[in-house]
Amino acid sequence: NKVYLVGAGPGKPDLITVRGLHILEEADVVIYDYLVDKELLEYAREGAEFICCDKLAKKGRYSDGFSIHQERISNLIVKKAKEGKKVVRLKNGDISIFSRLSQELDALARNKIDFELVPGVTAASGAASFTGIPLTDREFASTCAFVTGHEDPQKEASSIDWESLSKVGTVVFYMAVENLSEIVKELI
Amino acid sequence: NKVYLVGAGPGKPDLITVRGLHILEEADVVIYDYLVDKELLEYAREGAEFICCDKLAKKGRYSDGFSIHQERISNLIVKKAKEGKKVVRLKNGDISIFSRLSQELDALARNKIDFELVPGVTAASGAASFTGIPLTDREFASTCAFVTGHEDPQKEASSIDWESLSKVGTVVFYMAVENLSEIVKELI
Repeated sequence: NKVYLVGAGPGKPDLITVRGLHILEEADVVIYDYLVDKELLEYAREGAEFICCDKLAKKGRYSDGFSIHQERISNLIVKKAKEGKKVVRLKNGDISIFSRLSQELDALARNKIDFELVPGVTAASGAASFTGIPLTDREFASTCAFVTGHEDPQKEASSIDWESLSKVGTVVFYMAVENLSEIVKELI
Repeated sequence: NKVYLVGAGPGKPDLITVRGLHILEEADVVIYDYLVDKELLEYAREGAEFICCDKLAKKGRYSDGFSIHQERISNLIVKKAKEGKKVVRLKNGDISIFSRLSQELDALARNKIDFELVPGVTAASGAASFTGIPLTDREFASTCAFVTGHEDPQKEASSIDWESLSKVGTVVFYMAVENLSEIVKELI
């Protein structure tokens, strides 16, 4: 058996991919991010087990915007897979962008568990379609950058190079609400 | 009636969104990019009209990687919509990233034609899932940039700031095969 890491898309249930939906329909266990639309879970077969990552949380939000210690999620995925269950790990947006994919893949590889990755529509693409504002434009933006907005801009060892970012055509900040005023200040 | 601009996803037909597929199923006219998997078109209803953008081409590839003059596509979309048809404009990947969305939206707005945008999985996300290499990583890459690889790096007025790009965690070049050696040189 395999673990399927699936991107749920940017919000509305029908913005998941066809492949993602088909895999979800056959899951034994669905371990899902708390922002995933609960309507999507109704597509899983009767008797499937659902585990919301939020309910695993002990201390509330962590500093990088996730609400549960990543190790607990990774351990749970491994445990369920070792029980012989078809595990679907359903993540917000796309699985390769700000979703801690590396940590979960590490855990699977260490435990020699087979996996399959199903990409999803990332939040930036969802927002662009929702607003009608393209992320790139032949005249105005030949580069587009995605940046985590959850790294405190005032922290000493920030890995964000603000000077460089200011030269990118379009900059999209993920999880930026809390630090918005700091981000704007840095960019200006 | 409306024009639907739909992202087909990064390649395989089942990587389109559920919403995109449902809209495609009801199209009267499908105007599609030449890289879209033809299997996807089989989901459209019988009698639907299919127009491949490549067949509209006169002079082969244009300098920004597209194979047909954008104006001809925009005019065709407008013409078919004015005939009262349900037009689906099916684009590779996501519609908001390197897909000349602005030009088509301009044409629709100028002609007061209603439209709906359906995002898709962009090629970078597809490649990340295919290879198992995340685009961001908490330790190694808190920023990810998408850059057109079709702008000649030697042209005088390049809008790409290579110095800045070199400081971004992950850089993804789209349509970069032809200029690959130049791109690598610039980055180094």
